Amino acid sequence: MTLYDFNHDSFNYKYQNMKKNIKISYPSSEKIYMKGEIYPDLRVGMRRINLTPTVTNDNGKRVEKPNDPVLVYDTSGPYSDPNVEINLSKGLPKLRQPWIDRRRGTQMECAKRGIITEEMEYVAIRENMNCKELGIESHITPEFVREEVAAGRAVIPANIRHPESEPMIIGTRFAVKINTNIGNSHAHSSIEEEVEKAVWSCKWGGDTLMDLSTGSNIHETREWILRNCPVPVGTVPMYQAFEKVGGRAENLTWEIFRNTLIEQCEQGVDYFTIHCGIRLKNVPLANGRLTGMVSRGGSIISKWCQIHQQESFLYSHFDDICDICARYDVAISLGDGLRPGSTYDANDAAQFAELDTMGELVQRAWAKNVQAFIEGPGHVPMHKIRENMERQIEKCHGAPFYTLGPLVTDIAPAYDHITSAIGAATIGWFGTAMLCYVTPKEHLALPDKDDVRTGVVTYKIAAHSADLAKGHPGAAVRDNALSKARYDFRWKDQFNLALDPEKALEYWKSSNEVGGKYCTMCGPNFCAMRISQELNSDCSQP
Amino acid sequence: MTLYDFNHDSFNYKYQNMKKNIKISYPSSEKIYMKGEIYPDLRVGMRRINLTPTVTNDNGKRVEKPNDPVLVYDTSGPYSDPNVEINLSKGLPKLRQPWIDRRRGTQMECAKRGIITEEMEYVAIRENMNCKELGIESHITPEFVREEVAAGRAVIPANIRHPESEPMIIGTRFAVKINTNIGNSHAHSSIEEEVEKAVWSCKWGGDTLMDLSTGSNIHETREWILRNCPVPVGTVPMYQAFEKVGGRAENLTWEIFRNTLIEQCEQGVDYFTIHCGIRLKNVPLANGRLTGMVSRGGSIISKWCQIHQQESFLYSHFDDICDICARYDVAISLGDGLRPGSTYDANDAAQFAELDTMGELVQRAWAKNVQAFIEGPGHVPMHKIRENMERQIEKCHGAPFYTLGPLVTDIAPAYDHITSAIGAATIGWFGTAMLCYVTPKEHLALPDKDDVRTGVVTYKIAAHSADLAKGHPGAAVRDNALSKARYDFRWKDQFNLALDPEKALEYWKSSNEVGGKYCTMCGPNFCAMRISQELNSDCSQP
Repeated sequence: MTLYDFNHDSFNYKYQNMKKNIKISYPSSEKIYMKGEIYPDLRVGMRRINLTPTVTNDNGKRVEKPNDPVLVYDTSGPYSDPNVEINLSKGLPKLRQPWIDRRRGTQMECAKRGIITEEMEYVAIRENMNCKELGIESHITPEFVREEVAAGRAVIPANIRHPESEPMIIGTRFAVKINTNIGNSHAHSSIEEEVEKAVWSCKWGGDTLMDLSTGSNIHETREWILRNCPVPVGTVPMYQAFEKVGGRAENLTWEIFRNTLIEQCEQGVDYFTIHCGIRLKNVPLANGRLTGMVSRGGSIISKWCQIHQQESFLYSHFDDICDICARYDVAISLGDGLRPGSTYDANDAAQFAELDTMGELVQRAWAKNVQAFIEGPGHVPMHKIRENMERQIEKCHGAPFYTLGPLVTDIAPAYDHITSAIGAATIGWFGTAMLCYVTPKEHLALPDKDDVRTGVVTYKIAAHSADLAKGHPGAAVRDNALSKARYDFRWKDQFNLALDPEKALEYWKSSNEVGGKYCTMCGPNFCAMRISQELNSDCSQP
Repeated sequence: MTLYDFNHDSFNYKYQNMKKNIKISYPSSEKIYMKGEIYPDLRVGMRRINLTPTVTNDNGKRVEKPNDPVLVYDTSGPYSDPNVEINLSKGLPKLRQPWIDRRRGTQMECAKRGIITEEMEYVAIRENMNCKELGIESHITPEFVREEVAAGRAVIPANIRHPESEPMIIGTRFAVKINTNIGNSHAHSSIEEEVEKAVWSCKWGGDTLMDLSTGSNIHETREWILRNCPVPVGTVPMYQAFEKVGGRAENLTWEIFRNTLIEQCEQGVDYFTIHCGIRLKNVPLANGRLTGMVSRGGSIISKWCQIHQQESFLYSHFDDICDICARYDVAISLGDGLRPGSTYDANDAAQFAELDTMGELVQRAWAKNVQAFIEGPGHVPMHKIRENMERQIEKCHGAPFYTLGPLVTDIAPAYDHITSAIGAATIGWFGTAMLCYVTPKEHLALPDKDDVRTGVVTYKIAAHSADLAKGHPGAAVRDNALSKARYDFRWKDQFNLALDPEKALEYWKSSNEVGGKYCTMCGPNFCAMRISQELNSDCSQP
């Protein structure tokens, strides 16, 4: 079934160098599945980390007390299930195909009609994990998910052409999500490398993946990624359209852009970043800036506006864009073409003028049952972050906010994963629903695999810290289990519960006195936790 | 002159392996000095980063517009001055000796009597840099410094036995400072390595240095560090006292502790972390905790209290401690022995009971003209950070707060420089005066040189972000200069202005298309900043 007239056969996906198989494993972990109630066939994958018992000494007798396993949110999809055979040239199993086949309408349309879709129950189970068994109350029910989607406060990006992806939800009242950017540029990276990065991102916890390729083989790279990606995939369709006109902004047309959109919808892209918020009258607002425009899509369409002295076709054809997206249930990420590129430019007239436009557009998207979220900055010093969040909620009617960082200072290139994690954690706590990661190579070069890992783990920290601060149901379970393992000197448990078990173990092994009731930080005589435990046992004696 | 009966000759400082010379250099930077007005002989060292001109094209004609050099706060002392000969076995020049020789009384005593010391004018100049020349208003005058020191709201740690150190100030209304911990443990690290780490810390921007050695040669290691350290040095004297009693807490006595204090005062330690806030009645408050006590000094003195069922000698002899400190003008850092070791334990009764005691002690220190600050946590989720700061200000009468992080989540061992930088930036913005760094090896192993660099740079990010948010005079100058360099594609200027020029350059070079008006992130066709510049020039045409 092709919704638009689109010829798939003109593309050749037989990339020769591709490995057949990639698997993901985590130490002392098992893949488990929870079932649905409304839809009993649902199998929601989770990672169960098994722990060793706490060993104490009761008058010379060794006493073992078991520690409950800890369930963690799992973005690794079938790659971490030993029972699933992975074949990259065939693609992942089409988990959502039966649901899509029997459904009519978009997620938002169903939600408004009062229908809880399979995806809605799936994400409710996924957000809650085993809270119920642990006696932790949660506001997240399938019905709550439906209400949030109906109101536009949450988005389930799920193109009907990407049945391989596992449902997830982006909204203020859910766990904060993170997005990973990958993609080649002209001279760099192969299709194989990009697919590896995609799976790698899922391993470390990336919730969605944006393929920002601008080099050659854009279409083919994307196809390989989509067929093998268990998380929603986003793109900036303008990049491909821009390639189609040889990099000459003035030659862009609505028709070229429209065809690119349809091509990507057909492939299965789950959300599009489109810089529809750029208005002709607002382009000059960036002139007085220290760092002008730093959005690639934004600068391209601004150039088009200025050359043609005309309102952008992204803005004037917004309803047409929504019609296309609705047909495939693709979500729109309203790109912030005028986001500040330096702390100096933060919260300025250009940025806020665009936000006003986005507030208008998001309602038009909703009217067509298209889910939408709003992209945000960028570079913002800490004291100006709250205004961003409050203004976004007000102007954009509660649509989810999706920010890049923000970086809270400009003076640390090579450490911008950190400058931005500070801002990301803060704005996540204030209500931002998804955080776009930043790697150590930001501003300097394209990230390699190791940068992707560092970026993803850093952003998991930011998102999780925000979850703790927001009181997301069950968020503290993992922290507390790890802290208890630390206090018990259950080193391996501590590492297995960590966001990056491998690196923690590696650092620990780098010291050469290990295994005892102390680490090389304190040495054997100076371990506060050991002394503290001795104190505790002293106390229990008469 | 020996203020107490102390025999220096019993120590042998002739460590054979020590290199003679270490120098620090920064790219495109010069060491400059600003003069005093009250004390015209003062020479306050700063780093001037020289920039290249902005080059534009005006109708085919190359136009160069110069960019002003940027002054940055410089903690590298004489190591970065090519005119100073460094000889580690002789120690650094004794900058403060003439001031000390002619002064009577402590910094706080002078401040209360209305005297602006050399150190006070020095720090005023150092905090302001060239704000005046730049037309940036500043509230920081020598008189303001004096008022803050007199009121106990700011501390200038400056032992009269450490004349090599350059004055700096710790207080809410000044730039946020960072402390670096170094020191060996039993099986690890040599004196030479620790001295190298000390200078390394100064290179990257550490404002004070704590020597937390617990291994062999504690005294000698400290001597080498002190004689060669241009920043104030702190210690936890309990560690050495504990070694003296063979690691048996019950054998500690006031006399042993007192003699250790005097020994370290004589050597020149500028501030002591002492866990005087532990009260016998409060020790059991830690029993219900998930992670008990995580302060080494705190757990040792708690054990002493419990075994002897007696109030700690650190508490009962607090006035004696102050008398000793006053004689050498050593500042007291009231250690938080009951700080939480997990986010679960944050803001609990044990922590806040100790804070109350500290509030009592800080006033007793001030009564003896001893400067003091208060140590804080540790592990605190984001939504509980503000309460820490507000309560500390209230209970401790405005004394400066000095926190370790705090870590905002427990789930990321190997990345705790990042989990803690999020908390550090936040609490710094709220008013914390000094942030104790955390390295990637925290909880796992002792930091090596590379970890020290990562920890210091990460904490410079946190401190500087807080300065921007607090509106510290001139804080944004460096950000803006770097952002302008970025927009101008002045790559080298951008790196030279960065906190870690070497790493930024290295990452940039790792990509193989460099030097043009784009980076490998975007590739040649997709550079938003270049398109944005073209837009700007388009706008200037009719």
